[in-house]
Amino acid sequence: MTTAASAAAAQAQTADNGGERVIRVALAERSYDIRIGRGLLDGLGGAVARLAPGANVAIITDENVNRVLGERARASLTQAGQRVETIVLPPGEATKSWDHVGQVCEALLAAKIERGDIVVALGGGVIGDLAGFAAAIVRRGVRFVQVPTSLLAQVDSSVGGKTGINSPHGKNLIGAFYQPSLVLADTAVLDTLPVRELRAGYAEVAKYGLIDQPEFFAWCEQNWQGVYDGTDAREYAVATSCAAKAAVVARDETETGDRALLNLGHTFGHALERLTHYDSARLVHGEGVAIGMAQAFRFSARLGLCAPADADRVARHLAAAGLPVHPAQIPGGVGTVDEVLEAMAQDKKVSRGALTFILARGIGQSFIAKNMPRDDVRAFLEADMAGGPGV
Amino acid sequence: MTTAASAAAAQAQTADNGGERVIRVALAERSYDIRIGRGLLDGLGGAVARLAPGANVAIITDENVNRVLGERARASLTQAGQRVETIVLPPGEATKSWDHVGQVCEALLAAKIERGDIVVALGGGVIGDLAGFAAAIVRRGVRFVQVPTSLLAQVDSSVGGKTGINSPHGKNLIGAFYQPSLVLADTAVLDTLPVRELRAGYAEVAKYGLIDQPEFFAWCEQNWQGVYDGTDAREYAVATSCAAKAAVVARDETETGDRALLNLGHTFGHALERLTHYDSARLVHGEGVAIGMAQAFRFSARLGLCAPADADRVARHLAAAGLPVHPAQIPGGVGTVDEVLEAMAQDKKVSRGALTFILARGIGQSFIAKNMPRDDVRAFLEADMAGGPGV
Repeated sequence: MTTAASAAAAQAQTADNGGERVIRVALAERSYDIRIGRGLLDGLGGAVARLAPGANVAIITDENVNRVLGERARASLTQAGQRVETIVLPPGEATKSWDHVGQVCEALLAAKIERGDIVVALGGGVIGDLAGFAAAIVRRGVRFVQVPTSLLAQVDSSVGGKTGINSPHGKNLIGAFYQPSLVLADTAVLDTLPVRELRAGYAEVAKYGLIDQPEFFAWCEQNWQGVYDGTDAREYAVATSCAAKAAVVARDETETGDRALLNLGHTFGHALERLTHYDSARLVHGEGVAIGMAQAFRFSARLGLCAPADADRVARHLAAAGLPVHPAQIPGGVGTVDEVLEAMAQDKKVSRGALTFILARGIGQSFIAKNMPRDDVRAFLEADMAGGPGV
Repeated sequence: MTTAASAAAAQAQTADNGGERVIRVALAERSYDIRIGRGLLDGLGGAVARLAPGANVAIITDENVNRVLGERARASLTQAGQRVETIVLPPGEATKSWDHVGQVCEALLAAKIERGDIVVALGGGVIGDLAGFAAAIVRRGVRFVQVPTSLLAQVDSSVGGKTGINSPHGKNLIGAFYQPSLVLADTAVLDTLPVRELRAGYAEVAKYGLIDQPEFFAWCEQNWQGVYDGTDAREYAVATSCAAKAAVVARDETETGDRALLNLGHTFGHALERLTHYDSARLVHGEGVAIGMAQAFRFSARLGLCAPADADRVARHLAAAGLPVHPAQIPGGVGTVDEVLEAMAQDKKVSRGALTFILARGIGQSFIAKNMPRDDVRAFLEADMAGGPGV
């Protein structure tokens, strides 16, 4: 897989004359471009006009993003001659609910959005997931454009077509695979993000290196500060991440096979999020993934699959980039080994009670390990949770 | 189109040794079989076991159908070794709501239905649409089996993957294109249907002849009574209808092209349903379609597209089969020409205010007429509504 994904990544990253990078997600008639560059938000109107001449547009966003970026988005669309309505939602994970998706769908119908029109998701992962799901089910599908405004959304959630809301039974349990028609990632809008949000997004960047691109992980070790600071390293990191995800999604759109590799760190991470009751003051998703990736490598090392030095290297880099790498670093802790095991068993990807992990034979050599014996998991957790970050 | 559709119909109808007919809906990796025959309900468990060995099953049904057929469905599944949960909903169109789809999805999650499990839609069009939509969005898609228990559902709504619910803005405005894994049409369960329900379903049967199979319409004129009585004519009519719809769906799954032909009679029909406030005591969907088809042919005749004798023939056959063919036959009437025009303009298929009709050059020679001048529609309606059924 390493070769194929790296080749796809290399091939996909074509810088155009404006310094913009374009990644093509190859999904036959559902193919689309991810455009990455500074200042792209001001080109939103032109991009939508090329996609759907004469279309009406509904922007779905949250109060915070609307305050900072809403006017610019509307100005660009209006200047390109589009009629624009804006649907503004409360910020935060609680917005990914039945109530809000219903409200958004009815608002889109009230705005007379038709099949040929365009829904713009302007925001982070919550807005992208919710707006994408609403676009998927209004009139059985209207086109939508992702304008991700967080690093996490630019490198992960805006790419690949997973849309949805949360259920009382768990996160993202209601939704659809529904691909956008375009992703416009303006890397300049990340300049004003709080550093904790940048870090959380960065965990997913490093993940692509750990999955199957050891040379990209090495690049990350050298260049992570530039990603935070907004040098050219940021566009390179976003583009490489998108290309890696696009290659996986193109091979396995609905996660029947190796799309599951993208869940590296997520079996542990989701359990930690569940145990902290999705309280973002204690743990955000990217932090859970960082701890989970460090754990996945320590677990792999314990099973004799990879060198302990590789697990150390993973933890060292994530810690250097400001991310937690051990459950003990979560304010308030996460409880007992039994509680972690129980939280893992509730994962959406659990099938007939069997636990699936993404493990690794080294940096960039991850693989899917199905039906992990529960005793092995327990033994690892007991040893790991008795220890500490070690970095 | 006549030749292609007829060929597909002929090819698809292969009687197996049990007298069962099987129609294949060809949609690449989303292809599936429609099995048609008397008594198939008792083979539900075996069919599901072949589709998904070891799967758990959730039946979604309504109170009426559950009372008559629920136990048989459960017995068949249980005997085949499946764990079964039943989710029972109130009967009627009002069940196709946000509230109910939310309840059904949460109930499926509570029943621990996973990706590899099976949702069975046991009921008419309301249950099929709602259960299919719930299956489409729970865990971003679990497989589902349609067991249609009304003639309308067997010949129309269970085939083709349109699922969804109603919005305060209109019918079926929220939903997904989501194909079942199998359709099991037990024609014996129609024996106990009220004749008005059989008639309503029969309107859609005759429609396939009118669209592009003149020889099937001639067959209908000779054999409609057998469809009602439950002779072999019923299986032939259901199989021919499914084959016709399957051929159209295979060519145009998401209705970007000639799938719209299936809307013959529906532009008028939907407007009449809207004007009678979906009050089934006054007008059910199939009756609206029957009136709409008769109107579409009268409109075509008025425009000089088809012979007046063809329009007469359509109305005569539908009337013989017990269906209304003129708005004046609706108890309480439907209001003025302006009100009908206004109701048409609210149709889901309206694009930028332009009215689309399915018109005909003769029996079995229908075509899509986009951007019909509103004045022509008004002139036709004024003349038509001033008249009467004429049969």
